[in-house]
Parts: sequence; C-alpha cells; structure tokens
Amino acid sequence: MHHEHHDMAACIRACLDCHQACLATIGHCLTMGGHHAEVSHIRIMMDCAQICATSADFMIRGSTHHAHLCRVCAEICRECEQSCSGHQNADEAMRSCAAACRRCADECASMAA
Amino acid sequence: MHHEHHDMAACIRACLDCHQACLATIGHCLTMGGHHAEVSHIRIMMDCAQICATSADFMIRGSTHHAHLCRVCAEICRECEQSCSGHQNADEAMRSCAAACRRCADECASMAA
Amino acid sequence: MHHEHHDMAACIRACLDCHQACLATIGHCLTMGGHHAEVSHIRIMMDCAQICATSADFMIRGSTHHAHLCRVCAEICRECEQSCSGHQNADEAMRSCAAACRRCADECASMAA
Amino acid sequence: MHHEHHDMAACIRACLDCHQACLATIGHCLTMGGHHAEVSHIRIMMDCAQICATSADFMIRGSTHHAHLCRVCAEICRECEQSCSGHQNADEAMRSCAAACRRCADECASMAA
Repeated sequence: MHHEHHDMAACIRACLDCHQACLATIGHCLTMGGHHAEVSHIRIMMDCAQICATSADFMIRGSTHHAHLCRVCAEICRECEQSCSGHQNADEAMRSCAAACRRCADECASMAA
Repeated sequence: MHHEHHDMAACIRACLDCHQACLATIGHCLTMGGHHAEVSHIRIMMDCAQICATSADFMIRGSTHHAHLCRVCAEICRECEQSCSGHQNADEAMRSCAAACRRCADECASMAA
Repeated sequence: MHHEHHDMAACIRACLDCHQACLATIGHCLTMGGHHAEVSHIRIMMDCAQICATSADFMIRGSTHHAHLCRVCAEICRECEQSCSGHQNADEAMRSCAAACRRCADECASMAA
Repeated sequence: MHHEHHDMAACIRACLDCHQACLATIGHCLTMGGHHAEVSHIRIMMDCAQICATSADFMIRGSTHHAHLCRVCAEICRECEQSCSGHQNADEAMRSCAAACRRCADECASMAA
C-alpha cells in the first residue's frame, strides 16, 4: 500500500514535470524555427503536454481509470522523446525535454502494468 | 476521406456535448446531495468530462494518437452512462447526461475501430 | 433570468467554437510555415484556445467567478483576432478563426459587463 | 531578469502544488460527505484547481497575458483558502489545502503586481 502510494506520487511528479518541459520546449522550438517548428514535432509535444496533465489528474483524483491513461501516456511520451532526441540539431532544451519524456514514460509504464 | 471528416466532426461534437453535460450535472448532483453526491458518482463524471475534452482536442489537432484517446473515452463514457442512468432516483438531468454519454461512447467507439 | 440563461448558453457555445477554431488553425499555420508559424502568432492561439475552454467550464459549472474569466477571455480573443486577420497572407482558415475570435470576444465582453 | 525567472519558477510550482492539493481534497471532502460535500465548497475547489493549472500554463508558455491570469488566480485561491480553513470541522487535509491556496495566492499576487 505504502509502496503503491510512493509510486503514484513519483508518477504524478514525472507527469507534471513532463507537461512543463513539453510546453516550455514548444515555445523554444517555435522561436528556433525551421526544422524545430515542423508541425509533426510541435503536435507531438502538444499531445504529450496534454496527456501528461490528464494522466496526472486521474491519479490525483484517485480514479479507477488511471492505468488506462498511464498506458496511453507512456506511448505518447516515448514518441515525443524520439521526436526530441532524434531531432536534427537537437540542442540542450530538446535533450532536457527528451529526458523528462523518458522518465515519465518509465513511470507511467510501471503504473499501467 | 469526406466520410472520415464527417465522422470526426460528429465525434468532436459528441465529446464537447458530453463534456458540457457531465460538468453541468456535477453541480446538479452536488446540489441534490445524498446519493447523488456519492464520491464514486461525482468522480466518474469528473473523469468523463476531462477525457471527453482531451479526446476532442486530439481530434481537433489532427493527432495520430486520437484513436487511443477515443478508445479510453468510449470506456469511461459507458461507465458514466451507467452511473447516471442506473442511479437511485435518477432525474431528468441525469437521464439527459446519460444520453450524452451514450452518444459520445458510440461515436468514440466507431472512431477507435 | 431566462434572458441571462440564453446569453450564457450562447457565450459557452462561442467559447467552445473559438477553442476549436484556434486549435485547428494552429495545425494549419504550422503546416503553412514561414510567417504563419511565428512564435507570437502560435502562442496567442494557444492562449486563446485555453482561456476559451477555461471560461466555458466556469460558466458550465455555474461558478460565481465566470465574469472574471470572461473579461480576460474577451481581451485575449481580441488580440488573437488581430493576429489572425492582420496576418500577412491571411487565408480562409485564418479569416474563419478571426471570425470565431470576434464572436467569442463580443459574447464574453457582454457576459463580463 | 534572473530575479524575475526565480519568481516565475516559484509561482509555477505554487500553482501546480495548489492544483494538486485542490483536486485531491475534492475527493477527500466528497468521501467525508455532509458539510464537506456542499456544492459551494466543491465548486470553489474545482474553480481553483482549474485556474491554477491554466495560470501555470500561461507562465510556462511565456505568454504576455500571464499577469491577467495570475490576478484572477490569486483572487480565486484566497476564496478557496477561506472555504477550506473556515470550514466547520476542517481537518488536516483541508488545512493542508488551505496552506497550498495561501502560498499560491501570495505568489500569484506578486506576479500580477
């Protein structure tokens, strides 16, 4: 029980961190322009920011459906991580965002298991 | 293609209607009190309001992940429909909310297929 | 009373329409690229999409604070309208988004008065 | 400049903490029932949870409108603090939520000034 609560608190924290990283990096990438502002890259970061906030809320509310959200969140975070880390000319901001996505994907995958 | 766009527009509309129905009915049920304000009932309506708004946004953005969201949304809408329609002393507001949940569940299930 | 309910229902509808228009137009403008994808333009559309959804929720919940939200929403909608309609090479999608912003700004300004 | 960034980071953190506190306390109060589940109390916590998340997002995005959001957020947080701390039979969860609201109101009032 205590174990479960620790895991969920860590997962909520990872989701809120990833939400914040993605939203901040969208602004960064739009400012950089060019390849950074490609629609597929901005869109997956918008998707990731939103699913992270939604998954966090389901856990905070103690919803019985949180595992379904965490499963989808893990998948979207993985794709966002790849879009950030695999990006041509990935800079510090994007590597930092990729790291937040990876941590969130790991936490959410554990929570969904 | 045109067929797909019609379906998605209808699904977005059903999600936004269901979001609005659930959020309004939460206030109604808290005002009624008693069985209407049970935590499990209010919580599933909060879950439903949020997943409907999130699913709508994924479709509006043209996200490739919208089908995952619609699948989860259909499941949560079904549970919310049952919580509203099967409720002891279900009144007009709850039956109307149940109907919005049923329409949204049907649209989202088709979209996720 | 009935008058007030009519106004609020119209304002909620205008907010949800504007939310949808802004979110869809972000994708359009990122796809167009160039001037359409400037950070200030994309950001005001993200701001507008979010404040419209938030204002709608406050009205749907019957919150006593909805007038504060509508006041801020009207201001952001006006700025988004100008960003869309005054845009170099504004196309049909942007003119349609500007019209949704204008309707929402008018409804929210009336609601906040 | 560095001063401003420190303040904004602290304000974002306070908003996300308050969002989480309010959302968790809604579930607690619905479980307790009776006076804890009164519609006006639950509604102000829903308002507070949502405006905190919205204000945080505006700051994270670097929106020029963040001060308007912070002003409204401070006001709603003050009212939510009073609803929690002044509540008949306020328990540990509610006092903790009131403290999160107070911190967020102070940070947002500074940011809006």
